[in-house]
Amino acid sequence: MSRLIRQHLLPRLSNPYLAPLTDGAVLGWPEGELVFTTDSYVVSPLEFPGGDIGRLAVAGTVNDLAVMGAEPVALSLGLILEEGLPLAVLERIVASISATAAEAGVNIVTGDTKVIESRQPAPGSGNQARDGLFINTAGVGRRRAGLKLDLSRVRPGDLILINGTIADHGLTIMSVRSGIEFESELRTDAAPLNGLIAALLDSGADVRFMRDATRGGLAAVLADISEGAGVSIEIVEEHLPVSRTARHAAEMLGLDPITVANEGKVVAVVAPADGERALAALQSHPLGRQAACIGRVAGSQPPLVELVTRIGGRRVVQRPYGEELPRIC
Amino acid sequence: MSRLIRQHLLPRLSNPYLAPLTDGAVLGWPEGELVFTTDSYVVSPLEFPGGDIGRLAVAGTVNDLAVMGAEPVALSLGLILEEGLPLAVLERIVASISATAAEAGVNIVTGDTKVIESRQPAPGSGNQARDGLFINTAGVGRRRAGLKLDLSRVRPGDLILINGTIADHGLTIMSVRSGIEFESELRTDAAPLNGLIAALLDSGADVRFMRDATRGGLAAVLADISEGAGVSIEIVEEHLPVSRTARHAAEMLGLDPITVANEGKVVAVVAPADGERALAALQSHPLGRQAACIGRVAGSQPPLVELVTRIGGRRVVQRPYGEELPRIC
Repeated sequence: MSRLIRQHLLPRLSNPYLAPLTDGAVLGWPEGELVFTTDSYVVSPLEFPGGDIGRLAVAGTVNDLAVMGAEPVALSLGLILEEGLPLAVLERIVASISATAAEAGVNIVTGDTKVIESRQPAPGSGNQARDGLFINTAGVGRRRAGLKLDLSRVRPGDLILINGTIADHGLTIMSVRSGIEFESELRTDAAPLNGLIAALLDSGADVRFMRDATRGGLAAVLADISEGAGVSIEIVEEHLPVSRTARHAAEMLGLDPITVANEGKVVAVVAPADGERALAALQSHPLGRQAACIGRVAGSQPPLVELVTRIGGRRVVQRPYGEELPRIC
Repeated sequence: MSRLIRQHLLPRLSNPYLAPLTDGAVLGWPEGELVFTTDSYVVSPLEFPGGDIGRLAVAGTVNDLAVMGAEPVALSLGLILEEGLPLAVLERIVASISATAAEAGVNIVTGDTKVIESRQPAPGSGNQARDGLFINTAGVGRRRAGLKLDLSRVRPGDLILINGTIADHGLTIMSVRSGIEFESELRTDAAPLNGLIAALLDSGADVRFMRDATRGGLAAVLADISEGAGVSIEIVEEHLPVSRTARHAAEMLGLDPITVANEGKVVAVVAPADGERALAALQSHPLGRQAACIGRVAGSQPPLVELVTRIGGRRVVQRPYGEELPRIC
């Protein structure tokens, strides 16, 4: 199988840097800061509406670089295949990896493939599917010079922006697993955000901090910001972009969309005077059409996240613990 | 479990770059070439005489950088844990990762942990053990300026050097799996070779090309060089460093040591005039005490590897295919 991959699949990823006969890729690097990140992906099922584990892996690592203010330069790709993974599935996922990398404008410059024996869920574990495929992507990016993205720069009055609807990825996965179907299809939002984030930074808006909202959803990112910067945050429920289908799915699954995983959403904290400019920059990009200003940094104490509800009440948004089903990404 | 790791294990890896609250690490980078590489590790068992999957993962990625002439700068670490992996095992492996990184002088600057459900081998598959842990390491290194390591520079007369005994890693794993024991213990040779390789390059010897001999053993590296450079290679059996225990183990397991995996061996092709200088540099390092010149580039045609046997015969060394047991690294 390993030979099959080298011969039939990796050529699809080919680029000038991915030389099969060397142990790594050599990249020219003008002086400047480098950002380095990694993530493994174990999502089940491997394919789902709007994406697959391959798109997730490329987009996830690109986004980790982009939120740190780096333009992604190159990715590595580590595949761990379970014997018996259908070749057609593998081919589709490799094609998706290749397409997502092209969409993000990055090359996959070095890779590795391992094959593990087929296994099955432990009896009584309630698990059904085999794993089939795990993916690790690491990435290197070049940081924009002069950029100061830091939680220490977050201060009262700053605005909280997000580039579109929340909870789509997690609800898609959970709906597929639970066999629930909806009128209009739920789709993962998995997408590389480097282009969108470049547009935001190019606007000249003073961005204090960014983070992509993945596991734990928007709630986890807001908790990170609140705790990390030592500020209280106020979010307005009616400004939160949530699609009708997602809202419906969340109700049926008994979940709060604010705690559900995304794979193509960035939360940006922006200086008060730059809110409109930043929002316009996000909305000018295809992945930011539904961008919104969802709240603000209310004060310096206590480090809490509060949601102003539709009926004007207030509730504290907790950092989600143990809320997430396993294998969401 | 994931929280446990963040709280109890990752602190052991801590360094100024590994900041838990960011999505990646920022590294200053003066102008110069960057080498980027990745490898996943799925070895079974997870621990074995002389090492474990963690030591393998750090050493393997460090070595991939070093053979490309790069000084390793930073590693990423992706852990995929199977539920039920004993915490004590995980603690030992993380300690080993940390110790091996310190030995190599590199920092683990970014990481990720995923947990998968417990699985068991498919019935009738003959597999016994659970997996427990998969590791991916990616690495970035800085390439020495002015270095020209390239297969195109290999030419007739060049010498082939190796830094010590072959086959120790693969034979260790296979002996553990088969339950065979020997008088003196077989131990993996897994080790980070960047210090040794730096000593070789510092000697000023004209090194044409280097590769670490891992899966497929020495035979695979020699086949790579022969085919890649379009040269014939002649290796002298009595110059091959093989320990008595390894030779004995290989006989019992029916294996040719030249095709068995190593995890701490580098093959260097050196200009004829620089053989002694290069060998002295290798032997001056603790990981090169048993370094030897094992053969030479014999001619430009045909691209074959020949072994001159102890009794003066000649046999062609084939690139090993399907020879390797799964999960050796």
